[in-house]
Amino acid sequence: MKIRVLFTVFLLMGIVISCAESKYMVYNTSQGIVPGKLNVHLVAHTHDDVGWLKTVDQYYVGSNNSIQGACVENVLDSLIPALLADKNRKFIYVEQAFFQRWWRDQSEDMQHVVKQLVSLGQLEFINGGMCMHDEAVTHYIDMIDQTTLGHRFIKNEFGLTPRIGWQIDPFGHSAVQAYLLGAEVGFDSLFFSRIDYQDRAKRKSEKSLEVIWQGSKSLGQSSQIFAGAFPQNYEPPPGGFYFEVNDPSPVVQDNINLFDYNVEERVNDFVAAALSQANVTRTNHIMFTMGTDFKYQYAHTWFRQMDKLIHYVNMDGHVNALYSTPSIYTDAKHASKEYWPVKTNDFFPYADRVNAYWTGYFTSRPALKRYVRMMSGYYLAARQLEVFKGRSNTGPNTDSLADALAIAQHHDAVTGTEKQHVANDYAKRLSIGYTEAERLVATSLACLMESTSHTGCQITTTKFQQCPLLNISYCPASENDLSHGENLIVVVYNSLGWKRVDVVRIPIIKEDIIVRDSEGREIESQLLPLADAHVDLRNYYVQAYLGRTPKETPNYWLAFPVSVPPLGFSTYSISRAKRAGAFSTKSSVHTFQGIDKSTLQVGQGNVKLTFSADKWKCTNYVNDRNAVKELVEQSFSFYAGYNGTSDKNPQNAGAYIFRPNGTFSIKPQEQVPLTVMRGPIVDEVHQRINQWIYQITRLYRDREHVEVEFVVGPIPIDDGIGKEIATQITTKLATNKTFFTDSNGRDFIRRILDYRRDWNLEVNQPVAGNYYPINLGIYIQDDQKELSVLVDRPLGGSSIVDGQIELMLHRRLLLDDSRGVAEALNETDCVLDDCKGLTIQGKYYFRIDPVGEGAKWRRTFGQEIYSPLLLAFSEGVRL
Amino acid sequence: MKIRVLFTVFLLMGIVISCAESKYMVYNTSQGIVPGKLNVHLVAHTHDDVGWLKTVDQYYVGSNNSIQGACVENVLDSLIPALLADKNRKFIYVEQAFFQRWWRDQSEDMQHVVKQLVSLGQLEFINGGMCMHDEAVTHYIDMIDQTTLGHRFIKNEFGLTPRIGWQIDPFGHSAVQAYLLGAEVGFDSLFFSRIDYQDRAKRKSEKSLEVIWQGSKSLGQSSQIFAGAFPQNYEPPPGGFYFEVNDPSPVVQDNINLFDYNVEERVNDFVAAALSQANVTRTNHIMFTMGTDFKYQYAHTWFRQMDKLIHYVNMDGHVNALYSTPSIYTDAKHASKEYWPVKTNDFFPYADRVNAYWTGYFTSRPALKRYVRMMSGYYLAARQLEVFKGRSNTGPNTDSLADALAIAQHHDAVTGTEKQHVANDYAKRLSIGYTEAERLVATSLACLMESTSHTGCQITTTKFQQCPLLNISYCPASENDLSHGENLIVVVYNSLGWKRVDVVRIPIIKEDIIVRDSEGREIESQLLPLADAHVDLRNYYVQAYLGRTPKETPNYWLAFPVSVPPLGFSTYSISRAKRAGAFSTKSSVHTFQGIDKSTLQVGQGNVKLTFSADKWKCTNYVNDRNAVKELVEQSFSFYAGYNGTSDKNPQNAGAYIFRPNGTFSIKPQEQVPLTVMRGPIVDEVHQRINQWIYQITRLYRDREHVEVEFVVGPIPIDDGIGKEIATQITTKLATNKTFFTDSNGRDFIRRILDYRRDWNLEVNQPVAGNYYPINLGIYIQDDQKELSVLVDRPLGGSSIVDGQIELMLHRRLLLDDSRGVAEALNETDCVLDDCKGLTIQGKYYFRIDPVGEGAKWRRTFGQEIYSPLLLAFSEGVRL
Repeated sequence: MKIRVLFTVFLLMGIVISCAESKYMVYNTSQGIVPGKLNVHLVAHTHDDVGWLKTVDQYYVGSNNSIQGACVENVLDSLIPALLADKNRKFIYVEQAFFQRWWRDQSEDMQHVVKQLVSLGQLEFINGGMCMHDEAVTHYIDMIDQTTLGHRFIKNEFGLTPRIGWQIDPFGHSAVQAYLLGAEVGFDSLFFSRIDYQDRAKRKSEKSLEVIWQGSKSLGQSSQIFAGAFPQNYEPPPGGFYFEVNDPSPVVQDNINLFDYNVEERVNDFVAAALSQANVTRTNHIMFTMGTDFKYQYAHTWFRQMDKLIHYVNMDGHVNALYSTPSIYTDAKHASKEYWPVKTNDFFPYADRVNAYWTGYFTSRPALKRYVRMMSGYYLAARQLEVFKGRSNTGPNTDSLADALAIAQHHDAVTGTEKQHVANDYAKRLSIGYTEAERLVATSLACLMESTSHTGCQITTTKFQQCPLLNISYCPASENDLSHGENLIVVVYNSLGWKRVDVVRIPIIKEDIIVRDSEGREIESQLLPLADAHVDLRNYYVQAYLGRTPKETPNYWLAFPVSVPPLGFSTYSISRAKRAGAFSTKSSVHTFQGIDKSTLQVGQGNVKLTFSADKWKCTNYVNDRNAVKELVEQSFSFYAGYNGTSDKNPQNAGAYIFRPNGTFSIKPQEQVPLTVMRGPIVDEVHQRINQWIYQITRLYRDREHVEVEFVVGPIPIDDGIGKEIATQITTKLATNKTFFTDSNGRDFIRRILDYRRDWNLEVNQPVAGNYYPINLGIYIQDDQKELSVLVDRPLGGSSIVDGQIELMLHRRLLLDDSRGVAEALNETDCVLDDCKGLTIQGKYYFRIDPVGEGAKWRRTFGQEIYSPLLLAFSEGVRL
Repeated sequence: MKIRVLFTVFLLMGIVISCAESKYMVYNTSQGIVPGKLNVHLVAHTHDDVGWLKTVDQYYVGSNNSIQGACVENVLDSLIPALLADKNRKFIYVEQAFFQRWWRDQSEDMQHVVKQLVSLGQLEFINGGMCMHDEAVTHYIDMIDQTTLGHRFIKNEFGLTPRIGWQIDPFGHSAVQAYLLGAEVGFDSLFFSRIDYQDRAKRKSEKSLEVIWQGSKSLGQSSQIFAGAFPQNYEPPPGGFYFEVNDPSPVVQDNINLFDYNVEERVNDFVAAALSQANVTRTNHIMFTMGTDFKYQYAHTWFRQMDKLIHYVNMDGHVNALYSTPSIYTDAKHASKEYWPVKTNDFFPYADRVNAYWTGYFTSRPALKRYVRMMSGYYLAARQLEVFKGRSNTGPNTDSLADALAIAQHHDAVTGTEKQHVANDYAKRLSIGYTEAERLVATSLACLMESTSHTGCQITTTKFQQCPLLNISYCPASENDLSHGENLIVVVYNSLGWKRVDVVRIPIIKEDIIVRDSEGREIESQLLPLADAHVDLRNYYVQAYLGRTPKETPNYWLAFPVSVPPLGFSTYSISRAKRAGAFSTKSSVHTFQGIDKSTLQVGQGNVKLTFSADKWKCTNYVNDRNAVKELVEQSFSFYAGYNGTSDKNPQNAGAYIFRPNGTFSIKPQEQVPLTVMRGPIVDEVHQRINQWIYQITRLYRDREHVEVEFVVGPIPIDDGIGKEIATQITTKLATNKTFFTDSNGRDFIRRILDYRRDWNLEVNQPVAGNYYPINLGIYIQDDQKELSVLVDRPLGGSSIVDGQIELMLHRRLLLDDSRGVAEALNETDCVLDDCKGLTIQGKYYFRIDPVGEGAKWRRTFGQEIYSPLLLAFSEGVRL
């Protein structure tokens, strides 16, 4: 009751104020839509990046203001009284990561007041995800998860579901966003602002900024959504309508007792801005986005000026101004019965001006991108195990990882366009979330295991360890010499819905090892000597990240095949062999010298690769099963980062922008021979391309694809030039400038070199302007074959040359590209004070199929990359 | 009733919030003074300059933010809800010019809410004048008037009188401020921050920043006031306690669910700042001035952090933090029964560091300073005439002039330390106020005149003109050739309380003129040819300021003696002579060549000056009545403005700072002879010193002082050097480094060269560090004689050499002196696009008396300078 009284009085205050006589000025803001007039919908909004120059928490509390003056707490604190002061005022709020932080800090009374404002439509949640996710380098599962997390909160607290998509800042827009995160979410419209400058110009001239966007080819019309790109950006229109505290825009000075009265001028400015926008917009409804990044620190300053503008503009009568929201605007558009052009596919790549393609960020911070992807897959598995075990609010759960992952989808997070300290913050949050999820997974696996053995699930005794640093060959759990007769139990969990056969690889110390399955049967295994490149990686990064030097270095990778049921697990045990001869098979190792004229064929299964010594590249791919053969060359090159510092129109290459200043091929060092390891399970060819690129090509006996592991870095910069490292897989396929890249790990979209469906492309960046984001993979085809490449993280790629696929693996740049981050993308790691450029380890997979037959592998194996088998280790438990 | 409900609910909201349970944080801010502890009084305040970089109206509405982000409307708008949210929060507001603007805009409901806050002591008015007046170059009458104007409003609206003086920004502090505007106003204490850096250092070491200040020698103990200088400035203590929107100070992050929790750190910072300040302060009470220029744009940001600090600091317990006001602080100091050192005299001059004496502003913008002084005297007369006539709220009144004058006393107004456009704004306000007051004066004089002739006062027929531009020889009313037999009626009003005999001077066209008194008796008059220098001034400035060229140029000044009763008027009539020989006496004019060895004596009365041709200066002063004789030389020099741009510790000369780079004497041009005009009433000696200095020395028959008129400018800057023009009057008096300057036109204070009473002065600026503000005058004496100089406006002066008085007349500088104004003090005037440096016309008066006999003249004639006879002209009315 108290609450209602409070709210009523707040409202009363608005009424009292607007009814008061005297010299006190009363503004009429009650105007709705007027049919015959140009209606200017003032949409009051703030755009609050969930981390960028500051961390999400710093933005929330308003710390670290020397970097950027921004405090979201101020925005929300000041918003409520501003809305209460006039019931006509409206505001939209977008980023739930911030709103939730604020909500948790509020009194119940305040929460009730806010609920009233929401129910009255004065405060509307738009978009409603935890963040405004990126659309290029996000996986659709992450997009759904982070949106769900926000929407669920809104549903729980306010009983509502957001109606509108509001992706106003992401750097290009994806088809999956339009249909899956738009139409399928139930949104009535989707608004955004960053589209190619050439596209925008044409759309303005044709009044086609607003369209019906059909994002899915297969779903067709059911996937349509009304979508609008803003004429310029998501800020107020030109003409001085920024009303933040201390902003220089002229306030409406309507006090005739003071100097500089300017009502007519300001009304004319407003009308001019409205007519200009009406000129590029269909129907007599236009939207003014009244706000921008972190504005409304003191909401009153904006609303006071908007009150005045609405009042005086409507008195003037040329146009009709009203407080509105994207929902009201969308309804008005819908009611207009206007014809809207149809837009298909997506809005990639994005350039905001000549030579400024935002295609660098597809690869920026490849380690963070991989970490996010890895955590995403882990989160999926952990949630399953959480369900199996039963969710606990007190014990370890996946909430923290869910939250960290949600935030990491922000368009300055996984994109790599944040400051270094903010990137660290995202990683820290993932790490904290992972650590808790890891505990949950360990408990849940123990519970599953022990209930199998009828010990119940309340108290588990098995302690499972996991090895998140396997990528740097670090796994304390498996690095046990087992000399005291103990077993190493390996639990392998499969989070996919089908039975999987795969090969597990773990580092071990001793060579006389036997692997047994859960029935106690010895199974085949193979030992591969740990390459020096891996040892170096391990030693450096364990020190850099854990601050300690591991005592012993494992000598081998132990590889053994596993078979795991869908959504289930298998267990294996590893022990020292007690009898001679029953060991894991050691790989045969030999080197292949460049001076020979001979060739080298590897591969124990259907797929085989032939390496020719003179070219140092694999030159022949053959699949014995389906008789596919192809000449395949694999190579590396780098792009020099453009230094535009002293240009007339400066544009450096940077975290956002890919602007190469020449392509340079990277030749393998002739003197270093290939190292070849062969065994029953896998063949590996190790190549040291140069001092900072190492590559391993793997052919598993039971797989019909090639796995390529690369170790790239530290990229040398001692010549003062930033570099972006790409790899090319070159075939003879006649691909006719056409290639296919995925949208957020889902649909593949046809790309054509130097071509856009929606306008006649003026080519100024023949490489950067043809780059697309790759989350799942990329493929090319001719009338006979198709070459598919799948990736382990988002990166940029293209097919610049017919028959060739190119992936950008790593970027190290020395200049800022003037899009706000104000830092060069120059990632380093340090051991004490010794810092060097970041080294990236990763994998991609390729395969050649008869044309039309690649899809199944891309889809199935793509899922397996996303959801690798989850490994957990325990010691001493006899099976 | 509605009002009370509204207020109660606002309060309720505070209570609701602070009683709410849940995760919502409740801060305990209720702490009062704790006797045994160090009490830290947090005084929340904003310092709102009534014009500086922006005009007063621009500051109020928040326009012109590109110059400075500042909007006082925001401060007051946001303050009220912040105070309502917690009844322990307190705030002081100072500048009534802003508060009144805001008050007029508020609804009655809001006014009632504010009245409640004031009555509860949450909002306290401090200082309470329209502005925080300057103390160096303001006249005490203006100080009283502007303070009264503010206090009267507060009394009328709130029934209260401010208790505390708060002069935190003026550039040095005057004795008159302490006793007249402090103790005599009824203030319990006076706080300020700008004192000499050497003084401050000593006071900190001796804990004597807080004193009993006895500003008046004659009033003694009854003029005492408790006065405190802040340890550093009027901002928060060092350590990061600025909490404006977007300020970089670390906020108190007390949310354990977010990263960067820092409560302990911030508490420690606070305690450290408190202990540091306690170390230089007597008693266990210290004041933190929580605010600075134009802060509290969103008051919530400050109060939220102060809430947290009070809460956590008091939990910590090392010190006791509380919301306080200067009143509470003063009461605590009083209750402490501490002994306080006594301070006498004043705090001039002020240097904030080595080589940075704020003594330039004593003269900066000499034309504005003169305009303010002239308007001040006019306002005094106009108010008398307003009372005579009866005050009207609808007809013309003096309110607008009162308001303009009040604002012009601000410490960045009459000081000359504002930007040019702001100086223009002050002048514009004065001009508007004058124009209205001029109408009132005309009506009132007509009323007085006509009621004399029994025509009543409701409708007057006499139309009076006045001549505010007499200083540039422009007076359309008197520039009538009277060829059609009409009379020119001159009404002479005396606003002083004693009968005055004076000489009126007006420009006229024709020479055959007769002046008659109100009885129709012909009286003596004298014609003096208009000097070319005056004609040039007139022609240029009439064009520059009025945008027109006067048709005819007057040929003469007509001078005639008048006699006017106290607070009364006399009328004179001027007409063309009808009979020959009965004309005004033409002055005899001759020139005095520099090549002669002869001397020239002028003066028809007791005082005579002898000019010697070889030195081009007057060399002998004699008063026949009292046999005072003295060698007097008068000379000009300039100081080159210091250019410190490339120094290690840069400090240029500028609007604030006087930092000469050498003194250069200005020699008269040998070839130009003196022009001497003699007549029955006045003798004049005209000297062209150089192309841009012209000087007239006048001796009135019936006066025993010398009047010196100077025309200085445009100061040449074609050598790239800024210059400050000074004049010296040199005698043989043995003055022993001692001289006397007035405090705000009232008490004279003894000054000793290179010496301060309160500390051992370390001399680094032997000229600038000895300059003092002069409003009324300056004098020197030895055991026989005293030389007094009175001025027509504030300016800087000193006695650098024994026996010599120096006045700085004009300044033109080319660099900014880094105290915020960010403009060079380079005043220009333009006719169309032709701009040149400002020319200054002004007067000073000197006289030599037997020692001890000068005071009467200084006091009496000083009043006459301040309140010149008011002249009004009418045509055609027969007396």
